[in-house]
Amino acid sequence: MIKKVLVANRGEIAVRIIRAAKELGIETVAIYSEPDRDALHSQLADEAYCVGPAASKDSYLNMSNIISVAVLTNCDAIHPGYGFLAENADFADLCSDCNITFIGPSAEAISQMGTKDVARETMRKAGVPVVPGSHGIVSDAEEGKKIASKIGYPVIIKATAGGGGKGIRIAEDEEKLVSGIQTTQQEAEAAFGDPGVYIEKYIEDFRHVEIQVMADNHGNVIHLGERDCSIQRRLQKLIEESPSPALDEKMRQKMGKAAVKAAKAVRYSGAGTIEFIYEPKQKSFYFMEMNTRIQVEHPVTELVTGVDLVKEQFLVASGEELSVKQQDIKMNGWAMECRINAENPARNFMPAPGEITFYLPPGGNGVRIDSAAYPNYKIPPFYDSMIAKLICHADTREEVIAKMERALSEFAIDGIPSTIPFHLNVLETDAFRSGDFNTKFLEQHDVMNKSEEE
Amino acid sequence: MIKKVLVANRGEIAVRIIRAAKELGIETVAIYSEPDRDALHSQLADEAYCVGPAASKDSYLNMSNIISVAVLTNCDAIHPGYGFLAENADFADLCSDCNITFIGPSAEAISQMGTKDVARETMRKAGVPVVPGSHGIVSDAEEGKKIASKIGYPVIIKATAGGGGKGIRIAEDEEKLVSGIQTTQQEAEAAFGDPGVYIEKYIEDFRHVEIQVMADNHGNVIHLGERDCSIQRRLQKLIEESPSPALDEKMRQKMGKAAVKAAKAVRYSGAGTIEFIYEPKQKSFYFMEMNTRIQVEHPVTELVTGVDLVKEQFLVASGEELSVKQQDIKMNGWAMECRINAENPARNFMPAPGEITFYLPPGGNGVRIDSAAYPNYKIPPFYDSMIAKLICHADTREEVIAKMERALSEFAIDGIPSTIPFHLNVLETDAFRSGDFNTKFLEQHDVMNKSEEE
Repeated sequence: MIKKVLVANRGEIAVRIIRAAKELGIETVAIYSEPDRDALHSQLADEAYCVGPAASKDSYLNMSNIISVAVLTNCDAIHPGYGFLAENADFADLCSDCNITFIGPSAEAISQMGTKDVARETMRKAGVPVVPGSHGIVSDAEEGKKIASKIGYPVIIKATAGGGGKGIRIAEDEEKLVSGIQTTQQEAEAAFGDPGVYIEKYIEDFRHVEIQVMADNHGNVIHLGERDCSIQRRLQKLIEESPSPALDEKMRQKMGKAAVKAAKAVRYSGAGTIEFIYEPKQKSFYFMEMNTRIQVEHPVTELVTGVDLVKEQFLVASGEELSVKQQDIKMNGWAMECRINAENPARNFMPAPGEITFYLPPGGNGVRIDSAAYPNYKIPPFYDSMIAKLICHADTREEVIAKMERALSEFAIDGIPSTIPFHLNVLETDAFRSGDFNTKFLEQHDVMNKSEEE
Repeated sequence: MIKKVLVANRGEIAVRIIRAAKELGIETVAIYSEPDRDALHSQLADEAYCVGPAASKDSYLNMSNIISVAVLTNCDAIHPGYGFLAENADFADLCSDCNITFIGPSAEAISQMGTKDVARETMRKAGVPVVPGSHGIVSDAEEGKKIASKIGYPVIIKATAGGGGKGIRIAEDEEKLVSGIQTTQQEAEAAFGDPGVYIEKYIEDFRHVEIQVMADNHGNVIHLGERDCSIQRRLQKLIEESPSPALDEKMRQKMGKAAVKAAKAVRYSGAGTIEFIYEPKQKSFYFMEMNTRIQVEHPVTELVTGVDLVKEQFLVASGEELSVKQQDIKMNGWAMECRINAENPARNFMPAPGEITFYLPPGGNGVRIDSAAYPNYKIPPFYDSMIAKLICHADTREEVIAKMERALSEFAIDGIPSTIPFHLNVLETDAFRSGDFNTKFLEQHDVMNKSEEE
């Protein structure tokens, strides 16, 4: 079993990991940037070391400093959390070179899933549904035209090295396709040093449904049901729930099996997520991407399945078998997470870091708080603006919405604006309550302006 | 369905009830004493009214003021919580006279269970095991001697109107019995206006194991497994868990069936608890008393069964059937509660009210906080000294102990002493970890003095 872990992250996920390690009797080492000296993760760990100044590249992305701390403190493992170094194959390799267990999949699996057209081709060959489109890189406009006329317009042109909404272009007709391929290639070359692009059918209206998988190093791969993350703003998830209001048991099993196939195709190990585009009317789903790490929204899966995913990560990384089998996984009730950020929804979600002058999270039955905030905590302006994840669990979707409204209403955060009023606005719309919505929800519902009035 | 409820209580249980009501869409009215104007329950309710000065008899026990508020605010129900008016048959009657639903059992059931020898006789006749002893009141020393020689010494002499450790005397031999009966009768006459006493075999070493029951007004009575509350100090429970480490499934069902019998014998309605004396070696259990209300330790049952007991109270009081049947009740994992009080264990648990200068409860997976505390909250000296109930849930007892230790360690309460170090001391003893202990745990283990050193 792992004896001592360095947590290469900050904020709520660092706290989450430290908590799981403590419960497993694993010693914990935190790292922090200069402004994070008094951060909760620095306080809760058994030891804490500064790895650099505020800028992420100098601290939380500073591989050599982080590895040095791990070596000097005799850590036998590093947990990267999400973001920062979590999906960095070089860092996984570096850990392995230093005889430190990287808590995550192999560097190969990270690479394979990190390159978008490779991931797409790997999935297609493994029999996982992908959006109709090119097989691999499109060499020129002529090839693009052939593929597009076969799959039909509109199509989407994507840079294989792109991500996070960059290097993407939609083409409604042949003319736009020809110019679009050229422009995207040039942009991708300039931005990522790789001009490769590929083409997919553009699916406009879909739900974001993802499957949690968990794999050990003994050949066991299971899925733990789905999360629906369709409430997004510019690809940033805001509310997640499990199960999805759009899936029935048959579709859940179908998607789950596809996700297990996907994980097996890259000999996956640990916790991972296969994100799918889901069209409820057509009952069709397509591979979007795989996140080779623990995700922000993992708690909703924990609450419905009863499996502690971070503890499971530690077990798998220690060489143990998964503690649960596929047949043990039952979806129990309904869970929902609201990401509460220090942002002003009325001002286009502008981050609003600063001091939390009063802080009292809600409590009671079925309420879970994952947060690194505390009274008089100053949220630094250098990192993400998350204050807390509020996660609720109840028997039914209706009940969990009522519980979430109750919990949001009593959550006291003074001194800075937060997205609490925004979440309350979303929860009271008919569309959200009905469960019938897609990733365009925020464009279609005027929940932002309402927040301003509050 | 109940539309508007007055919560006739304060502290964490008032907050607990307000939360459940909000989740059910029921309007809430809080009452408060003068020093509780800024209390959390006063803040969270839709409306809040002062019912009197600090002394409980003038405020939280002030029946006419409380009923007046309920009538004037158009409440159709009153939830009494625990303590104060919760087991006051006169108050239940008064509610009924004013056409307000008292959320609890009938005044008759409260009376029957509140008079100790009547409760004992009712249980005996219903076939629920009672401690060997007299049938009803013992008229004189001669009758007492006959019974005692039959059941064997030591015996315990109890005033039927007594309670909370008052009006109780142990007799090791005939001489002490004769004088004891006389003295107890005189004391009981003086203290309670009722000289009646009865005799029971004195059981020295036992576990406190209680069964949660839930009954509706349609004849359905179920039990929701047991709670083990053996970690006590002078009959004050400090740590509770469910299931009990001393019970197997067979004994659970046997005790559960006895509890259902007990509830049926008094035509019980709502949430109630049958407390038993349990002797693990002999595998024998005896009726101790019935608490005709929701109990402090109810959350451990909620976490293992998934049933929200307070919501269920609202449903039953609204005339609905129980939402679950006996066969739906499964014990899932292990739950444990630590009562964190503003007391100094090193100074004989002396209450230490005052201002909480910094407050940050623990969070994360499997951690529930039921509390009315907040940063800069001043705990008033007039009521109980509870700061928070920390309740944890995990798959196994070992895991829940590890989680509780983790959660206790990160619970930050500054400004006043708390029982957190005491709980950590208990949790690390071999006796507690083994699960093999009884209600004499605190006498037998030196966990108090250790606290002083911290």
